[in-house]
Amino acid sequence: MKIVIIGGEAAGMSAAAKARRTDKGAEIIVFEQSEVVSFGACGLPYFIGDSFDEPAYMAERSVAQFRDSGIDLRIGHRVEQLDADRQQLLVTDLASGERFTQDYDSLMIATGASVVKPPIEGLALQGVHFLKTLDDGLTIKPQLQSAAIEDVVVIGAGYIGLEVVEALVHQGKRVRLIELSERVLTESFDTEISELIQQELVDKGVQLHLQEAVQSLSGEQGRVCSVQTDAGQYRADMVIVATGVRPNSDFVADTGIERLGNGAIIIDEQGRTSLRAVYAAGDCATVWHRVRREAVYLPLATTANKLGRMIGENLCGGARAFPGTLGSAGVKVLAVEAGRTGISEREAQGLGLDYKTVVIDDKNTTNYVPDQQSLRVKLVYDRVTKRLLGGQVAGGPGAVLRVDTLAAAIHAKMTTADLGMLDLVYAPPFARTWDAINVAGNVAK
Amino acid sequence: MKIVIIGGEAAGMSAAAKARRTDKGAEIIVFEQSEVVSFGACGLPYFIGDSFDEPAYMAERSVAQFRDSGIDLRIGHRVEQLDADRQQLLVTDLASGERFTQDYDSLMIATGASVVKPPIEGLALQGVHFLKTLDDGLTIKPQLQSAAIEDVVVIGAGYIGLEVVEALVHQGKRVRLIELSERVLTESFDTEISELIQQELVDKGVQLHLQEAVQSLSGEQGRVCSVQTDAGQYRADMVIVATGVRPNSDFVADTGIERLGNGAIIIDEQGRTSLRAVYAAGDCATVWHRVRREAVYLPLATTANKLGRMIGENLCGGARAFPGTLGSAGVKVLAVEAGRTGISEREAQGLGLDYKTVVIDDKNTTNYVPDQQSLRVKLVYDRVTKRLLGGQVAGGPGAVLRVDTLAAAIHAKMTTADLGMLDLVYAPPFARTWDAINVAGNVAK
Repeated sequence: MKIVIIGGEAAGMSAAAKARRTDKGAEIIVFEQSEVVSFGACGLPYFIGDSFDEPAYMAERSVAQFRDSGIDLRIGHRVEQLDADRQQLLVTDLASGERFTQDYDSLMIATGASVVKPPIEGLALQGVHFLKTLDDGLTIKPQLQSAAIEDVVVIGAGYIGLEVVEALVHQGKRVRLIELSERVLTESFDTEISELIQQELVDKGVQLHLQEAVQSLSGEQGRVCSVQTDAGQYRADMVIVATGVRPNSDFVADTGIERLGNGAIIIDEQGRTSLRAVYAAGDCATVWHRVRREAVYLPLATTANKLGRMIGENLCGGARAFPGTLGSAGVKVLAVEAGRTGISEREAQGLGLDYKTVVIDDKNTTNYVPDQQSLRVKLVYDRVTKRLLGGQVAGGPGAVLRVDTLAAAIHAKMTTADLGMLDLVYAPPFARTWDAINVAGNVAK
Repeated sequence: MKIVIIGGEAAGMSAAAKARRTDKGAEIIVFEQSEVVSFGACGLPYFIGDSFDEPAYMAERSVAQFRDSGIDLRIGHRVEQLDADRQQLLVTDLASGERFTQDYDSLMIATGASVVKPPIEGLALQGVHFLKTLDDGLTIKPQLQSAAIEDVVVIGAGYIGLEVVEALVHQGKRVRLIELSERVLTESFDTEISELIQQELVDKGVQLHLQEAVQSLSGEQGRVCSVQTDAGQYRADMVIVATGVRPNSDFVADTGIERLGNGAIIIDEQGRTSLRAVYAAGDCATVWHRVRREAVYLPLATTANKLGRMIGENLCGGARAFPGTLGSAGVKVLAVEAGRTGISEREAQGLGLDYKTVVIDDKNTTNYVPDQQSLRVKLVYDRVTKRLLGGQVAGGPGAVLRVDTLAAAIHAKMTTADLGMLDLVYAPPFARTWDAINVAGNVAK
């Protein structure tokens, strides 16, 4: 049994490790074009924000550890072509320039994603950065130590953009956040939650610009100094661009493999692509959505890990099926937590569902606990059956972990009434006797 | 429609409020023998620990607020007898001493529980306290301000006992905790969790005595000065006894109403007792257990509130059914959180179930987040079907809220495999990419 995996990040290395444990006799080869593996880019905002200094903390395991476990891990190797009929790859050893073919019995594509470069002039100026790779982090972090870097502009108010804003505020920078759409986190959250985050940004001194399009970046002596938008011009000693990612799947474009419009390789619940013996997962592929009942592009580390582990078994002949993502995700923006699971109201609208919503404001502890803080809960549910379709929670400590309870409830197809009477833990430091989640379930009619 | 409720604590007042909203025309009478209503005793440890000073914070609403909402709330009234055939009560107005009869169309017994007085000599000495009523709190709190109170002995290591220990440590007292059984929280948690709490107590300087029986309390000039056990004698400037509660149901003993051995009035899923038109809930009654499939005595505020609300509807002619308790509960003991839901291993043994368990040690955040802390997760599950039966989590911040996710999973009859692949939120400050709950599900075989 010869198993080949293309890509050594979360999905690929999870699959390699699981395949290694599942089939002791299989040959397992991983091709990774960079020199690092199992690198978690989600650590980068915390790295540049000086939560920690050791880059190795962002990698789950080292190259040596994977090799010691019996995985033939070949860093500095780029896969150029896939011939699915012959079950063969064309590979370049980047160090020597040598090209060779590699056959496989089962293949996994886990090539991840790359940053989207928006159509803005001046992206090549010094001081303009993306934040996706370890190199990006290693370049940005020392610059932020410099007192000369005072004004930083962040372009894009998605998860990464907001985490970068938090990091920059911690570093004492003057921060400006520019977002094209009408609010932050448009893709994941509804208005009622976005506005809590926006308020927190403004309260903490972040200059927030919504519905504003960046047109160009200007420099002096090759280094960025200002940002021009359709509404104004702003000083910038550094610019960080966080406008999303796109799947790395160009190298399989001519294979006839089924992909979404953005290039994401479509997989079924077992992680199989439309090509024989070829699996895919992670940021290069779709994932089955449990509520939407369709393959969607949601590049998240959790899904990459879960599908990787599952495909690790299937590469060895297994037939495990993924129960589906809920798009569960969370973010901390200064003192505000926000998390979501299932579908948002915006998604429910887009899908043409017959839904209702409820939004409640409550507290995270009993009134007499010092530091009691607010929680806002939004539920999206089926108008007729009252089945939960989605949930969002934002506010003080405990907001995001409450989303996990909603995730379990949505996974299990519970109704709002079930949620209202669910026996959740009460003790004064953790919740009120009726947890905010119960209250939302009971208020939903 | 004449609705009568005996008892003005959580269950009774929740029912009164819900009945008021459900049937605008009904006459709703509540008899409460004390002068306070909707008092939450769970606040008392925090009150004496000086988290707050305003006693009113411990009451959900005041007597005036209930009366304003159209509830005929009669404080200082004790119900002496129930004649279920005539649907009539014998009531004493404690202020005037006058006795009168009161008829009802539907009745709710919500008389709560009283502290168990253990067979120890010297309980009547000054400086020996229980902690159940507002008066208890008002008596203890000012005494703790006195520098003369240095050594405090707590008897009983249940939820209240442990919360009292925390309060006393915050007040700078030398604290000794004496427990008859072999570990703390024996009734709710298994050994693996109790030992984490015990370690925390010892680390923070609490003198912990397990498997030790208090025999007597000695005094000087009428005030307690020492505690004698079967293993030693200890100085005590104050003693707080927290050895559990028993249902207040003696006044219905002669009605033939079905009760458990401890006196708890047995109710069905709709809150009905064995007597016609008589409901009961709260600390005086049982509750239906969703996993145990039997009526159990679990005097918890959450259940009292939920059953109260439901019975409020049923008193007006409704037929709502409680989906069942999971015995979900949590406690914070100094820096350690611990929560539980479903059944413990001890309960599974007692029920003779064919079960398995798994215990894992994990972390609450990614490695690079400052203040990352440990979590221990224990699952109890069916050996054959792998269906979850119970869960316990203890450790740093986020331990208890993770129990809510387990509660939803157990409520919905999920398996360990479901839990392993459940799409929980990941972001560095909240969890690792595989949440500790996922890991426990995956490790369970």
